[in-house]
Amino acid sequence: MEPDFSRLTEFLGDDFDGYLISADGSDSNQLYLSGFDAPDPYVTLFTPDETALLVSALEYGRAKKESRADTVSRLADYDYRQKYTEYGPTVGKAKAIAEFLADHGVETLATPADFPLGLADSLRDEGVAVDAETDDVLTKIRAVKSDEEVEHIHAAQKANEASMQAAEDLIRAADVADDGTLHYEGEPLTSERVKEEIEITLLRHGCALDETIVACGADAADPHDRGSGPLSADEAIIVDIFPRDKETKYNGDMTRTFVKGEPTEAVREWFDLTEEAFHAALDAIEPGATGEDVHDAVCDVYEAAGENTLRANPTAETGFIHSTGHGVGLDVHELPSVSQAGEELEPGHVITIEPGLYDPEIGGVRIEDLVVVTEDGYENLTDYPVELVVE
Amino acid sequence: MEPDFSRLTEFLGDDFDGYLISADGSDSNQLYLSGFDAPDPYVTLFTPDETALLVSALEYGRAKKESRADTVSRLADYDYRQKYTEYGPTVGKAKAIAEFLADHGVETLATPADFPLGLADSLRDEGVAVDAETDDVLTKIRAVKSDEEVEHIHAAQKANEASMQAAEDLIRAADVADDGTLHYEGEPLTSERVKEEIEITLLRHGCALDETIVACGADAADPHDRGSGPLSADEAIIVDIFPRDKETKYNGDMTRTFVKGEPTEAVREWFDLTEEAFHAALDAIEPGATGEDVHDAVCDVYEAAGENTLRANPTAETGFIHSTGHGVGLDVHELPSVSQAGEELEPGHVITIEPGLYDPEIGGVRIEDLVVVTEDGYENLTDYPVELVVE
Repeated sequence: MEPDFSRLTEFLGDDFDGYLISADGSDSNQLYLSGFDAPDPYVTLFTPDETALLVSALEYGRAKKESRADTVSRLADYDYRQKYTEYGPTVGKAKAIAEFLADHGVETLATPADFPLGLADSLRDEGVAVDAETDDVLTKIRAVKSDEEVEHIHAAQKANEASMQAAEDLIRAADVADDGTLHYEGEPLTSERVKEEIEITLLRHGCALDETIVACGADAADPHDRGSGPLSADEAIIVDIFPRDKETKYNGDMTRTFVKGEPTEAVREWFDLTEEAFHAALDAIEPGATGEDVHDAVCDVYEAAGENTLRANPTAETGFIHSTGHGVGLDVHELPSVSQAGEELEPGHVITIEPGLYDPEIGGVRIEDLVVVTEDGYENLTDYPVELVVE
Repeated sequence: MEPDFSRLTEFLGDDFDGYLISADGSDSNQLYLSGFDAPDPYVTLFTPDETALLVSALEYGRAKKESRADTVSRLADYDYRQKYTEYGPTVGKAKAIAEFLADHGVETLATPADFPLGLADSLRDEGVAVDAETDDVLTKIRAVKSDEEVEHIHAAQKANEASMQAAEDLIRAADVADDGTLHYEGEPLTSERVKEEIEITLLRHGCALDETIVACGADAADPHDRGSGPLSADEAIIVDIFPRDKETKYNGDMTRTFVKGEPTEAVREWFDLTEEAFHAALDAIEPGATGEDVHDAVCDVYEAAGENTLRANPTAETGFIHSTGHGVGLDVHELPSVSQAGEELEPGHVITIEPGLYDPEIGGVRIEDLVVVTEDGYENLTDYPVELVVE
């Protein structure tokens, strides 16, 4: 289904003739605006009338077939090779793009904030007006998902559930050694071993991921610690998995916290409180509510129970020390923000809800599901039990 | 070991006070210059006197511990939160960076060509002179590897050899069905199945990869086709693997071509000729030789045998239709280029040698090893037999 770019047209208004991206397909704005993926940088021009691509000869046939562009041109159509030899890659490419823009009647350009500086300045030297927009116009459009995009994210989350199950099964099957560490098939069960199991399961489901978190004990008290070394019984193990479907490029995201054996009193209280905050956040989701409202619902629960939050204490180093959630799509972190700065939620926003509590003395606890905002609330895209103790 | 940045100091000369990067750790220039990896953008300033980092509070402790910077500052040291609220993220960050630059006595900046435009223009508004360099000064420094970097690449290539062996073993173990397709354990053996085996093997060796090529028959005749669907007997199967070590972030790269069964006369001739071109390229490697010299050695062999090359015919669509090789390091494609535009090779350059021939009527053949240029020639970092037929 064709994305709705009316907000981009509105943004361009009378100020800009077009919107230009020069990036490879690993840039999600490029992937989304062009409907095309290639490993080397290519150019997408959006105007209120058309979308036009400028690509290398190598990608020409595929771009015509696969992209959502109305027209596709080749760099060779603008004598790029000759310009490259005469002026070098940056100025040479700018001169070719300037001719391409002139062909499409474009003299004034908006670009994303991360448009490459060297190319922008060279385009300016060619007489093109170039302004980086700082309104996140395209990322705000991307935040609202079509039904098809929601299906892609749902599929990635299904793979995620399978890999979470594999991780939980491994922890369940482990034995507890005399020193309290977990062992599996005669070897210490490490964070690394569980991550490997997760990654292999995801591969078999067509997904990949760069990082996973399997963090135990004090490691889990730092939300950015990926975890390493042997896992221990009776301590909280945070498992946070965010895979990307290799075909569709859409992401999933989920976190569970497990204890093999007997949780401490403090961990059990934190888990119950976090589950309460989690449901309070879900209850607060509806179109018209802001990301801040949802974040506040979590902070209210934690603060009422006497826990520290960044809302109450901006320099807090223990307690609830991150935001409630974020958008998920082609990027695993994207708009909207479910935080103190969170703007209004709209139907089609796909967001994580992931409250948690952290303290090196106790460990870490986090629960995270992925949901889509609907006309009258939300639909949960995650189907995995929330249970602390793994017997 | 500390990289040698004397060429960067030389480049700055009297024109620039410093070199600035704003990017996350997935940007190899950032990773290299800062000696630090973080998932969100951070700032590295290089001057002839020092390297200084500007990071979020979240990354501060780790940056002090892990980076190669002489000093690490926090965005909070420059009231970033207040500036963000007042001016928004881009201008707010530019104002904080401008104060950080002033603290380090820097008024004129060079940046990589892909420095983000929005930030650059906002820094200019703050009175900082910003120029994107188009000399590839940092990527040229990165091209010369230290012994430690060569070891990292060698380790990634060892993992690569294990995954190539897994792919070859799978093809060897396959049966040939009546229709000529390969079957394994009762299922058609597809490109996808072999890629999965490669990826799982790499995961077990601490490596990851985004893409692999397992391309058979006509698919293999397009060097950019990743391959898909059932594999067939008696046809050339190109297996090209480029994994990245997850710990060190350095890459490996290797290609082999296999035929299960009986190769056609044309494929066998192409394979022998490509092996000859491969050795001619290796023989041409020595400090002082250029990437173009090595590429010429390949073209000479192919052209003498009557094969088409891009050197002889720039619009060729069959024959030897890519360059001979490229640098490998933190990026799987980096400088130096082993092509018509290839500059002088230096000791410490790590390059691929990967001649190949392509024609949809015949299929594709490619042989690729990874070598390091030494004081008196090269050392091959690849230890895998070059054999066409898999019995």
